[in-house]
Amino acid sequence: MTDNPLKSWPETAPRLVAVAAGREPADLVIRGGKVVNVHTREVLEGWQVAIAEGRFAYVGPDASHCIGDTTEVIEAEGKFLIPGLCDAHMHIESGMLTPAEFAAAVIPHGTTSMFTDPHEIANVLGLEGVRLMHDEAALQPVNIFTQMPSCAPSAPGLETTGREITPEDVAEAMTWPGIIGLGEMMNFPGVIHGDAKMLAEIAATQNANKTVGGHYASPDLGPAFHAYAAGGPADDHEGVCEDDAIARVRQGMRSMMRLGSAWYDVETQITAVTEKGLDPRNFILCTDDSHSGTLVNDGHMNRVVRHAISCGADPLVALQMATLNTATHFGLERELGSITPGRRADVILTSDLTALPIERVIARGRTVAENGKITVTCPHLDWPLHARDTVHLGKLLAADDFGVAAPEGANSVTAKVIGVVENQAPTKALTADLQVSDGIVEPDEANDIAQIALVERHRGTGDVTNGFVSGFGYKGDMAIASTVAHDSHHMIVVGTSRRDMALAANRLGEVGGGITVFKDGKEIALVELPVAGLMSDEPAETVAAKAQGMVEAMAACGCTLNNAYMQHSLLALVVIPELRISDLGLVDVTKFELTDLFEEP
Amino acid sequence: MTDNPLKSWPETAPRLVAVAAGREPADLVIRGGKVVNVHTREVLEGWQVAIAEGRFAYVGPDASHCIGDTTEVIEAEGKFLIPGLCDAHMHIESGMLTPAEFAAAVIPHGTTSMFTDPHEIANVLGLEGVRLMHDEAALQPVNIFTQMPSCAPSAPGLETTGREITPEDVAEAMTWPGIIGLGEMMNFPGVIHGDAKMLAEIAATQNANKTVGGHYASPDLGPAFHAYAAGGPADDHEGVCEDDAIARVRQGMRSMMRLGSAWYDVETQITAVTEKGLDPRNFILCTDDSHSGTLVNDGHMNRVVRHAISCGADPLVALQMATLNTATHFGLERELGSITPGRRADVILTSDLTALPIERVIARGRTVAENGKITVTCPHLDWPLHARDTVHLGKLLAADDFGVAAPEGANSVTAKVIGVVENQAPTKALTADLQVSDGIVEPDEANDIAQIALVERHRGTGDVTNGFVSGFGYKGDMAIASTVAHDSHHMIVVGTSRRDMALAANRLGEVGGGITVFKDGKEIALVELPVAGLMSDEPAETVAAKAQGMVEAMAACGCTLNNAYMQHSLLALVVIPELRISDLGLVDVTKFELTDLFEEP
Repeated sequence: MTDNPLKSWPETAPRLVAVAAGREPADLVIRGGKVVNVHTREVLEGWQVAIAEGRFAYVGPDASHCIGDTTEVIEAEGKFLIPGLCDAHMHIESGMLTPAEFAAAVIPHGTTSMFTDPHEIANVLGLEGVRLMHDEAALQPVNIFTQMPSCAPSAPGLETTGREITPEDVAEAMTWPGIIGLGEMMNFPGVIHGDAKMLAEIAATQNANKTVGGHYASPDLGPAFHAYAAGGPADDHEGVCEDDAIARVRQGMRSMMRLGSAWYDVETQITAVTEKGLDPRNFILCTDDSHSGTLVNDGHMNRVVRHAISCGADPLVALQMATLNTATHFGLERELGSITPGRRADVILTSDLTALPIERVIARGRTVAENGKITVTCPHLDWPLHARDTVHLGKLLAADDFGVAAPEGANSVTAKVIGVVENQAPTKALTADLQVSDGIVEPDEANDIAQIALVERHRGTGDVTNGFVSGFGYKGDMAIASTVAHDSHHMIVVGTSRRDMALAANRLGEVGGGITVFKDGKEIALVELPVAGLMSDEPAETVAAKAQGMVEAMAACGCTLNNAYMQHSLLALVVIPELRISDLGLVDVTKFELTDLFEEP
Repeated sequence: MTDNPLKSWPETAPRLVAVAAGREPADLVIRGGKVVNVHTREVLEGWQVAIAEGRFAYVGPDASHCIGDTTEVIEAEGKFLIPGLCDAHMHIESGMLTPAEFAAAVIPHGTTSMFTDPHEIANVLGLEGVRLMHDEAALQPVNIFTQMPSCAPSAPGLETTGREITPEDVAEAMTWPGIIGLGEMMNFPGVIHGDAKMLAEIAATQNANKTVGGHYASPDLGPAFHAYAAGGPADDHEGVCEDDAIARVRQGMRSMMRLGSAWYDVETQITAVTEKGLDPRNFILCTDDSHSGTLVNDGHMNRVVRHAISCGADPLVALQMATLNTATHFGLERELGSITPGRRADVILTSDLTALPIERVIARGRTVAENGKITVTCPHLDWPLHARDTVHLGKLLAADDFGVAAPEGANSVTAKVIGVVENQAPTKALTADLQVSDGIVEPDEANDIAQIALVERHRGTGDVTNGFVSGFGYKGDMAIASTVAHDSHHMIVVGTSRRDMALAANRLGEVGGGITVFKDGKEIALVELPVAGLMSDEPAETVAAKAQGMVEAMAACGCTLNNAYMQHSLLALVVIPELRISDLGLVDVTKFELTDLFEEP
C-alpha cells in the first residue's frame, strides 16, 4: 500500500525496548536540540531522541547508548524539536487537491496528522467516494485519518445529492482501519429534534468508541444548544466568539478554533484561555478549509499555531492545541502528538517557537521535508475511471436552457434574487423588477442582477434550475461555471449571457468538472478538477496558479468581491440563510422550504 | 445483574436530547447549587443539572424547562456539585472486603468510580477469580472497572502461585465488558529485558485499545526506566519523589500519586505541579491499598483529594486529578468524570471545596449516600463454594512440621534471618547464631529472633518452608498466621512457639483463611477471610473491628512495630529486597535466587 509501512507500538515494542535499553542501535538519533514536551508543557534543554521502526524509542538526556554503526545521526544545532502538527478538522477537497497532493502541499509546513472529513466527495460518490479518499490517505507518508461524513444530503428534501449516506454506511465505515470518527454533524436541528437517522449515525460512532464531530452553526446557546450537546457530538468548530468556545467546553465538548483560508475564528475565541484563564486542554486548533493558494503562499497548521501565538497564547500552549490536545480528543494520545516513547516519530525542527520556521519535518522517523521542500513522494491512488467521469449533463446545453420563461403575457416580473453579501456566508433574499423580452425574463446589468443556474450533473437529467443573483458586479457578456457547488455539488453557473452560460457548462462537461470563466464567448480561465469534479491530482502550485487565474478572470468580468469564488460555490448551500438555489428550485433557507422564483403579483 | 442497570449514552440519547430541549421531564433536577466544571476548571454559580436514565441530560444556568410532574427536585442550598471521585488504581482485596462490601464502605466517601486490579485473588484462583471479582463489581450501584492482573506469579521461578496468568488469559479478559486495561506490570525487569510473555500481555491490551498499568519500583531513572516506558505501560503509581513523577510524565505516562493506608506519595510528588508548574493534566490521585480501618475511620478518595489540597494543590486541580484526568486516562472522558451531558450522573454535594465534606452522593442519578450513610444495597455475588474453600493444608499440621533440622551433629548454626525494618517495605538480610536442641534449631527470644514458616495452602501438599525472622519483638509463646501473604498468598506463620504455630495454621485451615493470633496455646484474635482466604463479606466496620483486635493481639504478644500486620503479610513478597520466604525456600531478592537457610560454615 505505502512505501513507508508503519507497524503498531506492540509490534515494534521488542525493538523499541531494546533500543532504549541500549541493546540494539536506533535507526535515527537527533541530538543537540531542545525537546518540547507537550505532556509536561516544558522545554527540555539538551534532550535527545532515538527512533526505530518509525517510532520514538528513547527520549531523554543522553541517547548515545542508542547509537550504533547503522544509526543515522541528525545534529539539531540548538533547534527546538516539536511534535508534528495535527489538523483536527479539515476537508481535503477545499484545497481542490487529492489527498496525495494535499499531503505534498502541507508536509513542508509541518502538518503530519490530519483529521479529514471527505464530505464533498460523499455527496458525489457516496460511501465509495469516502473509501477512495480513505485509501489514498493510507498511502501517504503522514497520518491522514478519515471522519465518516454524516450529512449527505445536508438538507434532505431540499436538494438531491449524487449519493446519500445512511446510518448503515456509517456503521460499515466504522470498521475501516483509517476511520477515526463521524464527520461534523451539520444537521443540528435534526439532532435537537431527535431525528432517528442522525441519532443512529451518532450511536454507530459511539458504539465503535470513536469520536463524533460536531457542527452547531447557531448563536443560540439556550436549550437547543444543550440538546445538541446531549445528543453526542464531542467537538465543534463553528464557534465564532469567546462565549461560543466557553459554552462548548463547559458541556464537555472540545472547542476547535479554526483559521482557514476564509475562517478567522481563533482570535475571537482563544481569549477563553488567554484572558479568562480556562484550562487549555480542551481547546484545539484546526483549519477546516484551506484553498490551494493558502497552502502554497501562507502555510497550513504552522500558520494557525503562529496565529494563535500572535493572539497571545503561550507558544507551548498553542503547540499543545495542535498536538496533544488533538491526539487525546481522538483517542490517539498513545499513538501520536508528542515526542515520547512508542509514538509515531513525527517531529519538526525549528529554530524559533514563535516565528515557527519549519526547517525540517520528520514523519514516522523519516525526513519528509527540508526548508520548505518535500523530500518524499506522496503516492496517488489509481482512481477508477468513473470517479473521473462525474459530470453528466445528459445533453449539450444551449442558451435556451438558461432562459427564464415569464408568466404568460407578462411584460415585467418581480423576481426573487439571491443577494450576495460581501465577506459573509449568509445571503439576502432580495427582489427585483425585471423586464421580459420575447417571453423570457432578462437580467439587469445596470442593477447588478445576473442569472444563476443550477445544472444537474449527477444523473444526466438535463435539468437546469434558473434564477437571479446580485452582488458580483459582472459587466458585459460572461459566465462562470463550477462543479464545486456545496454541498450537493451539482454545477452552479452564474452569468450575464445565456450563450456564455451554456458554453461554460458544456466546457465543464467536456473536461470532467472544475471551474471555467467565459467572456464574450471565449474561455479566459479554467481549473480542471477531474476527480469527482472536485479535485485535481496536479500539484498544489499548479492548481493554485490556475485558481489565481480564475480569480483574475472573475475580476476581468467586473467582479469586485473578496473571495468571489467562494461566494459562487456556496450559492447552492441550502442550509445557510436566506435564499439559495438547488436542483429542486429556489430555496428559502429561513423557512427551509422551496419557494417560487416570482413574487405573487 | 444489578438493580440499577445503566444504559449507554447512545441508547439514552433520544431521552437526554428530549429532556435538554424541554420536551420531556427529567428524572431528577438539582438546583440552587454551584457546579464545578472540570473541563474548564471553574465553578459555575447557580448552574442546574437535569438527570435522566442515570445520565446528565442538561447542565446549564436554568433547568426549569426540564422539570415535570414526575421530576424529583433536589435543592442544593448553595452547595457545590462536584463529580463523583475516581480511584485510578487500587486493590479491593487490600481492604479484606469483597467488592460489594468495599463499595458499601467507600460510597459514603464519594468514590463512585474505581479502577481495581484483583491481583491477589488472581494468585489464588487465576482467571476465574478475576472473573468473580469482575462479576461482583458489575452488580454495584457505582462504577468498578477491572484491570486484568498481569503478573501471577510476580516472581516466576521463585514461588508457586495457586494459579498463573498467561498472555492468553489477558487476551480473553480484554473481551469482558468490565475490563478497562492491564493491571500494574510489576515485572519491570522482564519488560526491560524484552520478556516475550510480558510484552505479549501488553500487546494484547494495546491491541484491545485499553490502558496498560505500570509499576516501576526502582529509583533508577536511566536507560532501564526509558526501556520500561518504551514497552508500553501508560501510568505508574510507584513514584515516591518529585523527580519520579516528572520523569514519568515526560515519557508520556501518567503519574499516579497515591495516598493509601500506608502509602504517602502525594506530598512528595505533587510539587511537580504546585511548585514546578507542570501541566497538571497528567497527574492522577489514587489509593492503591486501603485497609478497612482506613475506610471506616478516615475515608477513601475524599481523604486523598483533601490531602492533595493540604499539600498546596488548587482545589479544582486536585478535583481534576480525581475525576477528569482519570477518566481521560482510561478512555472514559465521554462516559464519566465530569458533570456534563451524556456522562453517568455521578455527583457529590459538598459545602466546602477544601474540607470536602461528603454530604450527599448521587451515582447514576440515584442518591446512594447521605451524610456518611449509605442509602442503597450493594449486592453480593453468590460466590461458588470452591472460592470459599481455598485453604488446603493437606494434613493437620503439628509442631514438628515447624522444626528446623540442624546440620547433622551441629550444636549451633549461623542462620540467615529476615530482618524487618520499621516503616519500610524492604527487609534486611541478617544472620544470627542459633542454638540447636535435639537436632532442631531454636529461635532466640532474647535477640528477637522468631520462626517464620511459609505453609503451602493452594494444592494441599503439606509442605512447610521454615526460616527465621527478626524485628517483631514477640515475647513468650505465641504465633500469628495469615493467608494474606503477598503475592502468592500461601500462609505465613510467625511465632515463638512451634505448638502455637501449628495451632494457628490449622485454625486458618478450619475457618477457610484469614488471620489468627495464638498466645499460650489459645486464640486471642481472629479475622475470618473466607473468600479466597483474602476477603470477608462482612461489612467494613465488622472487619475493621476484627482487624483492630488482631493488631491489639500482636501488641499483646510484644510487637511494637507500626503496621506490624502489613510487615507480616509482605514477608513472602519475593520481588522486594533483600530476604524473603516462599514455598520454594528462602529467597535472596538482591540476586533473585533461592538461597540456603544456613550460612556456609
